[in-house]
Amino acid sequence: MYNERAVYRMNDLRRLIDPQTIAVVGASETPGSFGQRTLANLAGFGGKVFGVNPKYRETVGFPCVPTLADLPESPDCVVMCVSQSLVEPTLEEAIAIGAGGAIVYASGYAETGRPDRVAAQERLVDIARRGGIRIAGPNCVGLANVRSGAAMNFMSGCGEMIDGRAGRVAVVSQSGALGYTVLQAMARGVGMSHYLAAGNSSDVDVADFVAALADDPNVGAIICLFEGVKSGARFLAAARLADAAGKPLIVYKAGNTAASGKAALSHTGTLVGSVAAYRAALEEVGAIQTDDLEAVLELANFFARNDAPRNGRRVGIMATSGGAGVINADKAEQKGLELPALSPATREALATVVPDFGSIANPADLTAEVLKTASTFSHCLNAFVDDPAFSAVVVPLVFAHDAATGARAPIICDVAARKKNAIVAVWMNEWLEGPGSAVLDADPNVTLFRSADRCFSAIRAWCDWHERRASRRDAPPRRSAADACDNARAILAAARERGNVLSEQDSKRALAAYGIRVPHETIASTPDEAANAAQTMRFPLVVKIASPDIAHKTEVSGIRLNLKDGQAVRDAARDVLAAAAKHKPQARLDGVSVQEMAPPGVELVLGIQRDAQFGTLVVVGLGGVLVELLGDVSIALAPVTPQKAAAMLSSLKGYRLLTGYRGQPRLDVESAIDAICRFSEFAADMGAALSEADVNPVIVGQDGVVAADALLVLS
Amino acid sequence: MYNERAVYRMNDLRRLIDPQTIAVVGASETPGSFGQRTLANLAGFGGKVFGVNPKYRETVGFPCVPTLADLPESPDCVVMCVSQSLVEPTLEEAIAIGAGGAIVYASGYAETGRPDRVAAQERLVDIARRGGIRIAGPNCVGLANVRSGAAMNFMSGCGEMIDGRAGRVAVVSQSGALGYTVLQAMARGVGMSHYLAAGNSSDVDVADFVAALADDPNVGAIICLFEGVKSGARFLAAARLADAAGKPLIVYKAGNTAASGKAALSHTGTLVGSVAAYRAALEEVGAIQTDDLEAVLELANFFARNDAPRNGRRVGIMATSGGAGVINADKAEQKGLELPALSPATREALATVVPDFGSIANPADLTAEVLKTASTFSHCLNAFVDDPAFSAVVVPLVFAHDAATGARAPIICDVAARKKNAIVAVWMNEWLEGPGSAVLDADPNVTLFRSADRCFSAIRAWCDWHERRASRRDAPPRRSAADACDNARAILAAARERGNVLSEQDSKRALAAYGIRVPHETIASTPDEAANAAQTMRFPLVVKIASPDIAHKTEVSGIRLNLKDGQAVRDAARDVLAAAAKHKPQARLDGVSVQEMAPPGVELVLGIQRDAQFGTLVVVGLGGVLVELLGDVSIALAPVTPQKAAAMLSSLKGYRLLTGYRGQPRLDVESAIDAICRFSEFAADMGAALSEADVNPVIVGQDGVVAADALLVLS
Repeated sequence: MYNERAVYRMNDLRRLIDPQTIAVVGASETPGSFGQRTLANLAGFGGKVFGVNPKYRETVGFPCVPTLADLPESPDCVVMCVSQSLVEPTLEEAIAIGAGGAIVYASGYAETGRPDRVAAQERLVDIARRGGIRIAGPNCVGLANVRSGAAMNFMSGCGEMIDGRAGRVAVVSQSGALGYTVLQAMARGVGMSHYLAAGNSSDVDVADFVAALADDPNVGAIICLFEGVKSGARFLAAARLADAAGKPLIVYKAGNTAASGKAALSHTGTLVGSVAAYRAALEEVGAIQTDDLEAVLELANFFARNDAPRNGRRVGIMATSGGAGVINADKAEQKGLELPALSPATREALATVVPDFGSIANPADLTAEVLKTASTFSHCLNAFVDDPAFSAVVVPLVFAHDAATGARAPIICDVAARKKNAIVAVWMNEWLEGPGSAVLDADPNVTLFRSADRCFSAIRAWCDWHERRASRRDAPPRRSAADACDNARAILAAARERGNVLSEQDSKRALAAYGIRVPHETIASTPDEAANAAQTMRFPLVVKIASPDIAHKTEVSGIRLNLKDGQAVRDAARDVLAAAAKHKPQARLDGVSVQEMAPPGVELVLGIQRDAQFGTLVVVGLGGVLVELLGDVSIALAPVTPQKAAAMLSSLKGYRLLTGYRGQPRLDVESAIDAICRFSEFAADMGAALSEADVNPVIVGQDGVVAADALLVLS
Repeated sequence: MYNERAVYRMNDLRRLIDPQTIAVVGASETPGSFGQRTLANLAGFGGKVFGVNPKYRETVGFPCVPTLADLPESPDCVVMCVSQSLVEPTLEEAIAIGAGGAIVYASGYAETGRPDRVAAQERLVDIARRGGIRIAGPNCVGLANVRSGAAMNFMSGCGEMIDGRAGRVAVVSQSGALGYTVLQAMARGVGMSHYLAAGNSSDVDVADFVAALADDPNVGAIICLFEGVKSGARFLAAARLADAAGKPLIVYKAGNTAASGKAALSHTGTLVGSVAAYRAALEEVGAIQTDDLEAVLELANFFARNDAPRNGRRVGIMATSGGAGVINADKAEQKGLELPALSPATREALATVVPDFGSIANPADLTAEVLKTASTFSHCLNAFVDDPAFSAVVVPLVFAHDAATGARAPIICDVAARKKNAIVAVWMNEWLEGPGSAVLDADPNVTLFRSADRCFSAIRAWCDWHERRASRRDAPPRRSAADACDNARAILAAARERGNVLSEQDSKRALAAYGIRVPHETIASTPDEAANAAQTMRFPLVVKIASPDIAHKTEVSGIRLNLKDGQAVRDAARDVLAAAAKHKPQARLDGVSVQEMAPPGVELVLGIQRDAQFGTLVVVGLGGVLVELLGDVSIALAPVTPQKAAAMLSSLKGYRLLTGYRGQPRLDVESAIDAICRFSEFAADMGAALSEADVNPVIVGQDGVVAADALLVLS
């Protein structure tokens, strides 16, 4: 019921996320209590904090008042460390004194699945909406604003952990616990900006947090963890805001398989959408997706710490051991990155310090000799970082010692501060927090990866993300005619009277309204009519049974291909009518369809997938064994641009079949792209009216494409 | 030249790897010198250490003598901290006093690629072989035996790091630096057994170290890191010894792509074999392979800490947060592991402590309630560990606190000590060495993973490895006839007189000698002869050009299929002879081959790959678009067992085409397996005599398979 509102922006959430004055209701000195832990976490907060509890005048070092009404000023944010029964009255009091936001720790609401608890949660939202206050929670661990020190949560030691470690990466999480696992990188020195847990997301949800952070100039990248979102549209809107603000959004979605989906359903009230739909939708809005929780922070750090690549997917590897160079080169190649030759200036610079048993190449093996003094290492690293052949320089760090990694870390940071090529260090060592790692983790320019695989994946994602932004254009004009939608809707409306499943003819007429080429065809009631009709058509022809009750014509032997003359058409018509009568005696028969056969080509299939969260997606596959055996399909939110349609086609494993494979002629890929665009416009326009669409085959020839068969099913 | 010797065993290397008495030549007090660092590393060694240097009577706390000849006893191992020029004389002295092993740090040998340096290295080996001493190195960082405290290497602080931390995982590495990155896990508490760096591998190489460790009862798993091996056969022999001893061998090979291959060639003198051959060969001997350096230690720990799975690929996930359960369930499903229902006893046990908003299922969400006391957590974990439904129990650890992970770690260790289901903990936290992690890392029973993905990959590898061992049988008898090899060799020898490329007929005769069915065929010189021959054959027939000079018949339009009568055969013969004369006027023509056409079926291709390290591999693919577009092939060392042949087939993406896909009949998979076995025996028998073999297509029908065409090329 709240899905339709726009996402909150920073102006809507500032008092909740970035308060100047905080009131903690249920303030307490009992060790381990929510009140005590929250107040302890606020010790480093730069603003004002008040406890609220009639028992104290002061508690955990803060002034304390009996009730919210006794506060000397209106608090921006009220943290409710109270039991469930007191949440509603406290919320009313907070509204009464003009508070801007409330954090509700209490659980026992919608997450239980019990109708009375769901209703209680909805009551909270009603009260909040009426009172103009924003709620984080209920069932929420709390929030943290690192810059101000507002650790408004009950995680032990959070205030101390974040103290003085402001960075540019924010963590937004549906699950408080999962988000906190990422935030705890701060314990090893990583700077971050926010920790925003949505809990039950009764009012503010992850989409709102993302949208608000998009407005924050102190945020360089946003990590978002969730299992499912209530409204796909609102999440996409938030992601688009982040993208428009140039802030990478790193998304980790838990619950990607059938087994985990079950667990997710039993865990939250949020529907777990289909994985493919999520992926396609998030890709559309430029979100960076990963399947591994341990990858999110490194990704976010890397994006937040570097501007766009200055020379595309080109990487230099500055190793000081041959093995490390090889391992990293492996991964670069696996991820589709290039290792160009060093520029002459770099070669010259290196030649002055690298011994002759080293290798001045890419990957370089500078040998341990250059590690012996800070100046030689710095000299080499500067040369790499200045080299215009690259966008990023990867420095593998092998064994961990104070004298090695400990000494090199500050040098790497110094060179990175010059902000030329991106610098990443790969920590190839099982001493995970060994000497120097904390310096690199905390640095605002260097990114430290603890996996070569993740390092090069991140570099590739960074190149792709910036490439996509650079190539983005205004939405191209629709390909289909202005009246296509009206005409197709009229065809669907008329067809609905015969049932939900459209005949092949009606299905193709609807597609034809969008300018998709279909074969010339005639419906004939008898074999003789079919033969007569054939005389005006271009052989070879196809005869198919025509019946509103037969969706799958091959199952009743209802198709005859490659008919070369009138007699063959007559025989075929007789045969398919007989076969249909035999296999499906109850089916209403319109007769047979006589169709011109498409010239030979490669078969494409087009379809749709309806997703509860994200609407209609278009599915493209290459026909035959590839799509059926391997599920070789590409999927995207409808409608798609020609650019996207081309990318969908070329991502198919069998794409080469279209482009002149093994001496075959190149087929008309442009027309295939056009047909995908038009079909996607059709799918988007029809929206929820269609439940299924299967255009199979679409025959791609040397000159144009033809939708040789189609099946539409209405919702 | 040394490739042919057998691998060294522990008896050959004991004095080198596990010395009682160590002499350090070049003993020194100069901080940072090899001599000083080596002696400092030996402070915790349980045996005797002598320095050798005329300048000192005592150094770094050890007695020191002027020369090796002055030692009061024969040392087991001599560590040479001397410059290159002194290595040879020192080695001679070591031999003279009866030393068993020598470690040579000095570099400047074969790794430089210079002929004089290569020769110097060979001289060392000659001296060592004559003197009966084993050399590690040159260009070697050294070794470490953790149990005895013999840190015989120049890595600063190694002695201190390994002190008192003996475990059951050994690291063997070609590159000293890379191996040391793994060993440094000891700095965070992980116990290990050996660190054995091979350096230039002049005498002892990684294969020898692996073989020796296979003999050591204190070793539970062996990690082996290398870029390439000098002798594939010796490495496989070592891997087989490890396998026979029940010791998992975890292999990480650097240099898997073209780019890194280049780097590797410039880095070491070792040939980087083809990746596919390595993988196939190592799989054959049961080695566990990974592409990620950061995965090796967790894999080794998990294997070393657990016996065989007691109930196959079944895992229980005991999460205390819903999100953590979902994430781990995702990964379990991705890796093909099952999450069976909890046993009734487990459900009952959990029901007594899990609140009703938790989930008693698999994955379980026991909620933070069960974490509140040690006894409830321990109660639940015991129930999971006893549950006979599983082989392993995964415990995700979410936020890191003394009170949370710190308190739980010892409980997990206690339960794991009961040795029922394997226990693994997944550290889902960016505080990488946060509270409790060191306790879990050090425990001899629990395995701690810092990635859910790697955790479930390891569990799957463990299940597969033990399954493979359980299903292993004695090598089955050969399928081909006793005289197959002699007959085929005779055919090859006769054919060689006409050139290296065998005719289709000779190629098929050689295969037929191994019992592979080939079509009935006749060679005819003229179209009329062809038509006459056809009368005695079963139509439809095929006509192909027959010429020793035409290897690719389709390129000269030299094949006509599906000929239904004599006239068609006559016409076809005329056509192909004319086409051949036109396209390849110089070709010697034997006439045409008239062949019976195989009944319809699915096309298989069989081929070989010759590898410099591992010999002949057999390649199996499914014909048509799958193999050509997707490279959908399977590869294995020849010969293969029927079990392996079946696995090769079923690993193909298009396998379902053989087993009754979309209403098609099931094809004769058994005969396909038989043909693969026979072909692999042929390939293995012919060995280096064959450089190429292409049997394409092999048509798999409903009753038998036929090799419809074949091309063999001699070396």
